[in-house]
Amino acid sequence: MKFEYQNPTRMIFGAGTLLRLGEVAREYGNKAMIVTGGGSVKRNGAFDRAVASLDEAGVSAVECSGVEPNPRLSSVARGGEIARRESCDVVIALGGGSVMDAAKVMAAAVFYEGDLWNMFPHGQAARRLPTRALPIITVPTLAATGSEMNSGAVITDEKTMIKSFVGAKCLYPKAAIVDPELTVSVPPDQTAYGICDLITHITEAYFNGVDGTPVQDRFAEGVILTAMEYGPKAVADGNDLDARAQTQWASVVALNGWVQAGTLSPFPVHMIEHTLSAQHDIAHGAGLSVVNPAWMRFAAKTRPARFAQFARRIFGITKSDDMEAALEGIDRFEAFLRSIGCPTRLSECGIGDELLDRYAEDTLLVAGNAEGQLPGRPMMTKADIVEVLRAAV
Amino acid sequence: MKFEYQNPTRMIFGAGTLLRLGEVAREYGNKAMIVTGGGSVKRNGAFDRAVASLDEAGVSAVECSGVEPNPRLSSVARGGEIARRESCDVVIALGGGSVMDAAKVMAAAVFYEGDLWNMFPHGQAARRLPTRALPIITVPTLAATGSEMNSGAVITDEKTMIKSFVGAKCLYPKAAIVDPELTVSVPPDQTAYGICDLITHITEAYFNGVDGTPVQDRFAEGVILTAMEYGPKAVADGNDLDARAQTQWASVVALNGWVQAGTLSPFPVHMIEHTLSAQHDIAHGAGLSVVNPAWMRFAAKTRPARFAQFARRIFGITKSDDMEAALEGIDRFEAFLRSIGCPTRLSECGIGDELLDRYAEDTLLVAGNAEGQLPGRPMMTKADIVEVLRAAV
Repeated sequence: MKFEYQNPTRMIFGAGTLLRLGEVAREYGNKAMIVTGGGSVKRNGAFDRAVASLDEAGVSAVECSGVEPNPRLSSVARGGEIARRESCDVVIALGGGSVMDAAKVMAAAVFYEGDLWNMFPHGQAARRLPTRALPIITVPTLAATGSEMNSGAVITDEKTMIKSFVGAKCLYPKAAIVDPELTVSVPPDQTAYGICDLITHITEAYFNGVDGTPVQDRFAEGVILTAMEYGPKAVADGNDLDARAQTQWASVVALNGWVQAGTLSPFPVHMIEHTLSAQHDIAHGAGLSVVNPAWMRFAAKTRPARFAQFARRIFGITKSDDMEAALEGIDRFEAFLRSIGCPTRLSECGIGDELLDRYAEDTLLVAGNAEGQLPGRPMMTKADIVEVLRAAV
Repeated sequence: MKFEYQNPTRMIFGAGTLLRLGEVAREYGNKAMIVTGGGSVKRNGAFDRAVASLDEAGVSAVECSGVEPNPRLSSVARGGEIARRESCDVVIALGGGSVMDAAKVMAAAVFYEGDLWNMFPHGQAARRLPTRALPIITVPTLAATGSEMNSGAVITDEKTMIKSFVGAKCLYPKAAIVDPELTVSVPPDQTAYGICDLITHITEAYFNGVDGTPVQDRFAEGVILTAMEYGPKAVADGNDLDARAQTQWASVVALNGWVQAGTLSPFPVHMIEHTLSAQHDIAHGAGLSVVNPAWMRFAAKTRPARFAQFARRIFGITKSDDMEAALEGIDRFEAFLRSIGCPTRLSECGIGDELLDRYAEDTLLVAGNAEGQLPGRPMMTKADIVEVLRAAV
């Protein structure tokens, strides 16, 4: 293990903490841009409560609404323009992963010179990371991405339908206000996709990280076991606030770096899925639910012992043969995803097998290494990616 | 769960990272005060390598040596005086928990007005937390306290022989350089005490935290299981660098707040132990090894289910009766401590039963609440503390 880790975000967690938004925002500015999505925060009252809290603290607010799922570069540019024009000095993301990711990049767009897409790796074009951003406060309304307490964002360029990732120090939120009450109105399907998303953040590093990280392994297993215990309760009864809180805390730690510290892991399943949700209107978590089990069966062939550890520690599988244990574990994992209502086949998402080559090519365009392979364990060629996707048809 | 968490410390982990000290220190200052303990870093070459790294980066250094185990207020005052007199602008702690704790308070002492002991709670005197400190860089040479990545310090006032704790935002190190190679020369007994120390940080919150923290429970169990797997290897062969690295990472996460986030836990076993090591020349980890099993047997009577969970998840105990499982788990835990060479009786530390009342009174003086009880689950009276200590005679 050899690594660096730093995460300066201040985490404020608990039911009712939305009421502290104004007090917290006041530490960073006087005029906030509130970034929102499709309007659910208007319907459930969260937006009004946020504005009231800001108002009480003497922070004025303008809104940048309508950030779409799989947020687009043009939306980010629009938000940056609003923040600049309105002289906002703090950006508040009130929404799910798409809203938080978009808001982070908007906060950096205010200072970024040139084409915003240059922040993101894409094909041969050089990448120039953002180095400065307005202070960001995240207020997640969904337990899923972990974006509230990390420095990453995923944006889609609608011209090329390429989805890409940026991670930069200036994108760490100053504060994350994580109020599980905001998630009680999330419908069962979106709740389930969020659970799949958070678990996949964990499995990526568990299966693709470096060897010799036993603490991180145990942390990873702990998050998965907790998500599998409380996630179904949140799906079954959205008003179960304890289940919502435990699921949401699991989603925070699943991608704030605590579990992955030192694993130095690529995220191949995410890279493949991004290609799907860039081209098709599917939820990221649903796409992951399709790709991950298929990828696991592919990868288990090269590292059965690792997948057997997963099977034994998560599902208590007792088979002594590693490969048999591994495959039973993956079956059980896929069955869990189905049990909470996640799709595990492309066809369930309305995606056929016509464009498998294109998905693989796009994946490698964004995330391929110099040898044209997708980093992970094992490294994947275009043919490997197609094989995984074909297994998920 | 309702809590706040923030930890800005930059963690640099891995064998050989001591070589980066100069580069890192240069970000914070030009003249460093290096705080050291009894001289082991001189004998094993770490001090010279640290100075060479600083020198190469253009950072000059003065030394504050001789910080004793269970560091004293007078040493802290001396260090603050050196830093002030020499116009140091960064403080580097090169040593174990005592050195790191002392260095943190020295860095704050430079700016603190009035009696340094006022930083610490002690009896009726009001506490005034430090609000400013020189930049601190920790370079631990022992896997134990977790002080390298948190904002706490424990200091003994030699006039009263009271040991007390301070935690303040300004005491977070700017960076922690955690190089497991620095721990290979730690002798087996000190290695074992460090393992007990780190595990006790975990058990405190596991048994005294609020209900309903399942992710934190799993994290806690993961750290204990890892420490129990790799710790004995580090005791048996100090040159096993992988065992040293895993043990040290376990010690970092055992007290950087990741496991305890949201548990809002008091640390009663530590509070009782501090009284012992303030009055007797024993290692903190050895004292914990004596107090913890005795405390566990006392506390299990009020919460058998919790201790049964520990027994089942850590030791795989299958007894269905909670109390029986709990007691077997505690027996197994005590046996583990003995297996790595830790004492579990006061008499093994040369401490008799003459002063049990005094230890209990001192504990309540530092850590008692308004009702004269020691916070924890259960709350403890003076008689309870004496009962625990008597069971450990």
